[in-house]
Amino acid sequence: MTKGNQEQKRITIVGLGLIGGSLGLAIKAAGQPGMEIVGHDRNRVVANKARKMGAIDRAEHNLPRAVQGAGMVVIATPVLAIREVMEQIAPDLPEGCVVTDTGSTKERILEWAAELLPPSVSFVGGHPMAGKETQGIDNAEPDLFRGRAYCLCPAVDAHEDAVRAVTGLVRLAGAEPLFLDPQEHDQYAAAVSHLPLLLSASLFTLLRASPAWNDLAPMASSSFRDVTRLASGDPQMAHDIFLTNRDAAVHWLDRMIEEMGRYRDLLEGDTEELLETFAQAQMDRDSFLAEPHPRRLQGEEPAEVRKELFNSLVGGWIADRTKKVRELPGLMRETRTSRAKRTAEDIRHDLEKLEAKRQKKDRG
Amino acid sequence: MTKGNQEQKRITIVGLGLIGGSLGLAIKAAGQPGMEIVGHDRNRVVANKARKMGAIDRAEHNLPRAVQGAGMVVIATPVLAIREVMEQIAPDLPEGCVVTDTGSTKERILEWAAELLPPSVSFVGGHPMAGKETQGIDNAEPDLFRGRAYCLCPAVDAHEDAVRAVTGLVRLAGAEPLFLDPQEHDQYAAAVSHLPLLLSASLFTLLRASPAWNDLAPMASSSFRDVTRLASGDPQMAHDIFLTNRDAAVHWLDRMIEEMGRYRDLLEGDTEELLETFAQAQMDRDSFLAEPHPRRLQGEEPAEVRKELFNSLVGGWIADRTKKVRELPGLMRETRTSRAKRTAEDIRHDLEKLEAKRQKKDRG
Repeated sequence: MTKGNQEQKRITIVGLGLIGGSLGLAIKAAGQPGMEIVGHDRNRVVANKARKMGAIDRAEHNLPRAVQGAGMVVIATPVLAIREVMEQIAPDLPEGCVVTDTGSTKERILEWAAELLPPSVSFVGGHPMAGKETQGIDNAEPDLFRGRAYCLCPAVDAHEDAVRAVTGLVRLAGAEPLFLDPQEHDQYAAAVSHLPLLLSASLFTLLRASPAWNDLAPMASSSFRDVTRLASGDPQMAHDIFLTNRDAAVHWLDRMIEEMGRYRDLLEGDTEELLETFAQAQMDRDSFLAEPHPRRLQGEEPAEVRKELFNSLVGGWIADRTKKVRELPGLMRETRTSRAKRTAEDIRHDLEKLEAKRQKKDRG
Repeated sequence: MTKGNQEQKRITIVGLGLIGGSLGLAIKAAGQPGMEIVGHDRNRVVANKARKMGAIDRAEHNLPRAVQGAGMVVIATPVLAIREVMEQIAPDLPEGCVVTDTGSTKERILEWAAELLPPSVSFVGGHPMAGKETQGIDNAEPDLFRGRAYCLCPAVDAHEDAVRAVTGLVRLAGAEPLFLDPQEHDQYAAAVSHLPLLLSASLFTLLRASPAWNDLAPMASSSFRDVTRLASGDPQMAHDIFLTNRDAAVHWLDRMIEEMGRYRDLLEGDTEELLETFAQAQMDRDSFLAEPHPRRLQGEEPAEVRKELFNSLVGGWIADRTKKVRELPGLMRETRTSRAKRTAEDIRHDLEKLEAKRQKKDRG
């Protein structure tokens, strides 16, 4: 395999679940001539299905080989697995390659990228604000991202062209790029995405654990089903999110508990105020639905404009392999030496040590 | 107007919003020969629309006149208005008439029925577990109740045939009757319906009030939208629900706050336990979706069987006007004398007095 040449436009998608599969379908649907999509999934059956569905052109079960010659690598696995993937692909990433991910938290992932990826590649963290509680390649669809926000957190040393290339991919999928600091992203994602998940799950488990469940279940209609929908999501994904975004999640959970205390006071207090609160919420939510993107997102370009943009960007990232690299010899060494396959168990252990250290620091 | 004769099969629907309108459409869709549906709404435009849509046969703006000659009266207004309607129709209800409602709480409504309706009619409280956040006749649909539970709380003195008639109506609409004590109903409804509403509203208001709202809004995707959907519901309906089911709502809100505290501990504790909690929730919710009605609801009869059943029941309720009546002369006097039109303001005032009395009693 050559390490990327002018003629080759190859995107490798690692992890062919709902997000990875949908991204593949979206790129294919946009019709990119001369573009090859290589797909890797640790489950061969999934990878073959993705190929048959046309989400990828070619399945490659060997992960390092899958990224060879790629101009862009999209890591679309659960959050903790992203670290594993980075370690495994680091030695085989072509110089100048753009690496992006689709994980729901960003601060830790950017730390891993800085630690594990070679300085010759650019990392641009990504998080499409799209999803459903049904998972897997079977539920992938090319329009999953259309009209959605797609958060982007470029590494501080990411090349400008790499950022433009990932932006092009986002627009190609019909989504709207939203640039954020990783810390900012994780705080906001905790509010709009991880807190709803906690509420959904906790409402479900509260009622499910009630001795009256057998009587409650037949009465549980659309209200209960809608609000608990996220409890049917992938538990590993939820676990990884909260493990890597614990502080922000706890912060918003605490604020939510306060807000529910406020509603408790409303229930026991002035009925006029209760009515006004619900009326104001209804009005505000209607405004939000009518104009969800008050400032940042300005709608989509026509398909042709998007295609052109992307083509020029793909060209750009392939052509320009020079890169502003921060000198990080220590991290480089780490990258090259810690090659042994790490299990999720190891990563969890490390995160826990990190957490313990932080707590000790807090106390000290 | 005659006060109901053998030949006349008339149902009067008071309040032609989403529920009243959908109920009318469901009865019409089932095709009941010789059945007249009279509709009343305080808004003439709504009533005319209901007639044009075929949800009712005839609109009658004079409320007492609307119930004259009716074998069954369905009160489908917001909860507090149900009390007003009962007062206004009480003197004109035909003997042996069946009165039902569709309110989201039942204990207070059954108290009002006992207090306000003449002993010659039977009251069977009802609560269809169906709805959407979009309101009004424009969103009415004949299949709104299909496959849903429909709670029934007959008054202690309701005639057996009246219960059978309302049961017939429920089955005609494709729903499954679920018999409950009113206290039991209100506790369960608080859990599966009113608590989700509180969560939905409080998640929305928490984020909306955040100084970061302009940054959060563009990121708020399907998770946030689904969980906050109920915040777009009718504020008056929410207000009435919590005013008439305050204790149960506060009880479940407190338990929910506890449950969220448990999740907070999970987030800060053992990551294995966190994963197990989410995995168990996913599994349990999937089981719930696969078989939401573990014991009580056994699926629908074929349409023809339902039609026959209803026809025989309608016959029954018209034919059998004898009724086991509890002697309640005091309530009867109250019913006949308190005719002055009461505003929602008055009702609220009464409820507050009642609440104050209860609290005094609790303290004493």
